[in-house]
Amino acid sequence: MSSSGNEIKITFPDLSVRVFEKGVTSLEIALSISEGLARNVLAAKINGEIWDATRAIDQDVSIELLTWKDEGGKSTFWHSSAHLLAEALEALYPGIKFGIGPPIENGFYYDVDFGDKTLEGAELEKIEAKMIELARQKNEFVRKDISKQDAVGYFKEKGDEYKLDLLERLEDGTITFYEQGGFTDLCRGPHIPHTGYVKAVKLLNIAGAYWRGDEKNKMLTRIYGITFPKAKELKEYLHMLEEAKKRDHRKLGRELELFTFSEKVGLGLPLWLPKGTLLRERLVSFLKKEQDHTGYQQVITPHIGHKALYETSGHYEKYGKDSFQPIATPHEGEEFLLKPMNCPHHCEIYKHKPRSYKDLPVRYAEFGTVYRYEQSGELHGLTRVRGFTQDDAHIFCRQDQVKEEFIKVIDLVLYVFKALGFDNYTAQISLRDPDNMEKYIGDEEAWNKAEQAIIEAAEEKGLDTVTETGEAAFYGPKLDFMVKDALGRSWQLGTIQVDYQLPQRFELEYTGSDNQKHRPVMIHRAPFGSLERFVAVLIEHCAGNFPLWLAPEQLVILPISEKYAEYASKVKALLADNDITGEIDNRDEKIGRKIRDAEVKKIPFMVIVGEKEQEENKISLRKHGEGDIGSFELSAFVDFFQGIIRESLNK
Amino acid sequence: MSSSGNEIKITFPDLSVRVFEKGVTSLEIALSISEGLARNVLAAKINGEIWDATRAIDQDVSIELLTWKDEGGKSTFWHSSAHLLAEALEALYPGIKFGIGPPIENGFYYDVDFGDKTLEGAELEKIEAKMIELARQKNEFVRKDISKQDAVGYFKEKGDEYKLDLLERLEDGTITFYEQGGFTDLCRGPHIPHTGYVKAVKLLNIAGAYWRGDEKNKMLTRIYGITFPKAKELKEYLHMLEEAKKRDHRKLGRELELFTFSEKVGLGLPLWLPKGTLLRERLVSFLKKEQDHTGYQQVITPHIGHKALYETSGHYEKYGKDSFQPIATPHEGEEFLLKPMNCPHHCEIYKHKPRSYKDLPVRYAEFGTVYRYEQSGELHGLTRVRGFTQDDAHIFCRQDQVKEEFIKVIDLVLYVFKALGFDNYTAQISLRDPDNMEKYIGDEEAWNKAEQAIIEAAEEKGLDTVTETGEAAFYGPKLDFMVKDALGRSWQLGTIQVDYQLPQRFELEYTGSDNQKHRPVMIHRAPFGSLERFVAVLIEHCAGNFPLWLAPEQLVILPISEKYAEYASKVKALLADNDITGEIDNRDEKIGRKIRDAEVKKIPFMVIVGEKEQEENKISLRKHGEGDIGSFELSAFVDFFQGIIRESLNK
Repeated sequence: MSSSGNEIKITFPDLSVRVFEKGVTSLEIALSISEGLARNVLAAKINGEIWDATRAIDQDVSIELLTWKDEGGKSTFWHSSAHLLAEALEALYPGIKFGIGPPIENGFYYDVDFGDKTLEGAELEKIEAKMIELARQKNEFVRKDISKQDAVGYFKEKGDEYKLDLLERLEDGTITFYEQGGFTDLCRGPHIPHTGYVKAVKLLNIAGAYWRGDEKNKMLTRIYGITFPKAKELKEYLHMLEEAKKRDHRKLGRELELFTFSEKVGLGLPLWLPKGTLLRERLVSFLKKEQDHTGYQQVITPHIGHKALYETSGHYEKYGKDSFQPIATPHEGEEFLLKPMNCPHHCEIYKHKPRSYKDLPVRYAEFGTVYRYEQSGELHGLTRVRGFTQDDAHIFCRQDQVKEEFIKVIDLVLYVFKALGFDNYTAQISLRDPDNMEKYIGDEEAWNKAEQAIIEAAEEKGLDTVTETGEAAFYGPKLDFMVKDALGRSWQLGTIQVDYQLPQRFELEYTGSDNQKHRPVMIHRAPFGSLERFVAVLIEHCAGNFPLWLAPEQLVILPISEKYAEYASKVKALLADNDITGEIDNRDEKIGRKIRDAEVKKIPFMVIVGEKEQEENKISLRKHGEGDIGSFELSAFVDFFQGIIRESLNK
Repeated sequence: MSSSGNEIKITFPDLSVRVFEKGVTSLEIALSISEGLARNVLAAKINGEIWDATRAIDQDVSIELLTWKDEGGKSTFWHSSAHLLAEALEALYPGIKFGIGPPIENGFYYDVDFGDKTLEGAELEKIEAKMIELARQKNEFVRKDISKQDAVGYFKEKGDEYKLDLLERLEDGTITFYEQGGFTDLCRGPHIPHTGYVKAVKLLNIAGAYWRGDEKNKMLTRIYGITFPKAKELKEYLHMLEEAKKRDHRKLGRELELFTFSEKVGLGLPLWLPKGTLLRERLVSFLKKEQDHTGYQQVITPHIGHKALYETSGHYEKYGKDSFQPIATPHEGEEFLLKPMNCPHHCEIYKHKPRSYKDLPVRYAEFGTVYRYEQSGELHGLTRVRGFTQDDAHIFCRQDQVKEEFIKVIDLVLYVFKALGFDNYTAQISLRDPDNMEKYIGDEEAWNKAEQAIIEAAEEKGLDTVTETGEAAFYGPKLDFMVKDALGRSWQLGTIQVDYQLPQRFELEYTGSDNQKHRPVMIHRAPFGSLERFVAVLIEHCAGNFPLWLAPEQLVILPISEKYAEYASKVKALLADNDITGEIDNRDEKIGRKIRDAEVKKIPFMVIVGEKEQEENKISLRKHGEGDIGSFELSAFVDFFQGIIRESLNK
């Protein structure tokens, strides 16, 4: 098929091609498919670049229509919403000046100079109402090419020094304005067809922000907001925000006494309190046990290494300047580094003796604590720290073993997800960029095989995958797991990564069946990623209600009065013998109060012992959030309890 | 009782006092007690200073007679033996010159300038024979006071520039010569009465040593030797050396694949191989379990801390210059240190919430890896390293709880020793120096109570103790365990230490029953000390034949031929289900060869499976070093195996 004269060829993501008239818009193309689709199209990716859906297409292109489901669709929607906000502000507060108004991960903001006025939180509702009013007018976003001179003239007249500042720094070339309703902005676009798509608005927050982030400049008022194409979605989002606040791992970590920070020790360096340590150690032994079954061998390596080690690995050249600086010694002039990764140490262990093809795969696992410098402003609870423990392992294998090893790692990751209640996940396969093949190191045939092995392994395990070409690291392809938590937020957990580089840099070898030296393939993998981050995600996912097998306090024993303290101790000892952990609440408080406190502490079971229980050698049981679930013989309770754990850990 | 005129009072270690004539010698005093004692006296501690046993005593003094059993006796014996070596050398090689000849931990050495001659190893036997010949002459060691001028004259005539160099640097004051047989030496003494006490001689080694340890000076020949008062003792010692060589943990660590070092990672930074890691983790979980029962809580803290943390603790001031240097950050100008101790971090955890007297004791335990710089020449296998993991814990308690806490820690330490087969130990209690009370920090009454608590706790547990006054740290008294290994060598393992300083420096508090703020007492304790050092001692103690519960490979399964590989796998899986670890030796080798290899690897049990075993669903069992011990049903073997472990871990 070839286009001619007034016709252009449009290639769709499924590689089908259709012919349209020159000047057709994405919206019209969508309409040619279905009206429903057209209603949902917000923008379109034209030859990889996002365009207005209403912009005319003049030549053969590839197209990807973007809706609310696509990141590109969302960010266009929010970018247009920032303009809508500005339009509403200008209507309500004439004479104000505008800085920048970009979309962000969740919503958008606009930086505004209100002159002498201070914007009050109470005014946000009025602005929201104005935005909805303007949205209902379905004002089209109109793109206009304009000369720099005319653009400068426009903002000079308006007296907006910020836009003039922006213009001044723009390289000469095409400058575009976007206009909707009564508002015009200097803007590259793209935008949604008209303001009517915006059905729900929430302005979330007011903050101060220096113009251009420079504290020598004036502080502008930054207004954060979010908008949705359906009112229901806004409601859900606000509920999610509310929930996320309640589940914030920093708040729960403090309340449940899992971890703390000390300024004296240093920001971003968590101190694990007894309960957090227990939780963490349960996670570790859970994974260790599973790894033992899968043929991993645990090793332990130091937290520092000679600078030369990281010169060999390439880490020093790449990260050295931006990381914790070298550690000098008082004599002998040596220099050590805090280890940012465990791989170089594991390579040195691989090298400690000669290897034969029969010895492979060798799988070295270590819960290795690594240190990476982050600026203090970047630190956030357990999700962004300066020291964290990876559930790291390195598999040294032959090229022909890559697929089988990937399958085994996928099995392990899925087992972990299941045991921890993460049921909603996808996998991303990152392959080479076929247009930039020269940037990858390692033999091309090996790459082909490894990529094929990953694709096949994911297929065989029936994973829901997304394949991203061009996303492979220069040293190998990889597979990452994206997990959705209970609030629908996505987290990257679990990564499997092929590496052709380190075996080369460390000159790793094995003797093949041909009696020749060969280079093994290295696979990095971490089901949790970092224990710190994983625990943070887990806390927020389960709102602190950990699976029973993982809960640091699995139960609390509540004697009705101190008369039953002895019986309570007997019960505690018997449960401890069965690896069931819990303390006795011996406080001189009413039983009702003790129950309430245990509920707040999210302890899964409350074991109540009083006269009746003591006489009958039984316990009365309450379950967190459910209340009384009856009276149990002790041994029956142990069976019941262990049954729950067995079930949640069963494959 | 008072002495007068020609009489002096001699006070014995049991504080009894006897009167002797002025000028009496220690030897004569010993003789007045018993002839047997006199035969064994090598020297005497007079008012705390070691003297010749033949030196006249002119005034009231305290006396402690020293025999071979005392460190002071041994070092005097070896010092005299160095003179004997020199006498023999001078007789055999006239004209040689002498440097220094001190006693050392095991024996003595003498540095000699042989001129152009090179001493060959083959000549040592001849020298030993000469020493024995001279020893049999029972030449007395004669002490002579001499003026510096006469001393210089003597060595000038002899042409010995080394002794002249020594004399030159001597402060003017009393200079003494010692003479025995035909040999005279510049020497402070003391010496044994005569050479005849030396009954057995072994020259062990020849090495080079620069005069005064300065490589700009001439290299002298250093001859190492050891001597004994009984021939049998030399034989035992040489046997012990032989055994120690076989048991050297560096050798066994390599052969059993427990750990390795890599120059690229850094000297003194052990890399734990899979088997060593398993061994180490068994030790850790063994102690953790016991600590759980005893009310410890595990915590996890980072391996670095702000420099300010160690300024507060006082570690930076004390050790900062000689340790790993501060770690700078690329921004924000922070400085961190590798942690040399876990205590500051635990203090910060203690401080994370308010404490009441009812909450105490709080016991924080951590297998915390710490880093301390050692010069490369000081490093030795796992016993002197730059990074090691302490089985550390800190108990924060009230003053009235110190004794009970000590008893609990002693129980824990003794349980550890028993489970690991260390049956031979003593405890040293270190108290204040009553003459220097001003150098100790903390309330005097608290000190009195703490010292008393330690003494009583040790007494109640029936420990074999030595009390050393003046050996307490300035911040608190302590109790250390000294353990004798299978070769009779002493190791300091296990320490319990009261600390009044850190609670003060970190301003730790609790609210008392009086509603006032009080300072808790801190107790540091570590039953193993360092895991690295402990594993080294354990390897040498048991010669790599670890207790069954600790062995990284508890058994190996040996199929008679590959026909039984499947049955072997079944056996392996069943044993693994019962926490019994072992691999299958699937090599295409004869069963005899497989058994020999397993013996070399010191694997406790060999499980042999062939046709008969498969048919009867049994195994044939061999025990390391003992051979065949019969045929077992699998379940019977599991019971038998677990019985052994239970017994060795039973209190």
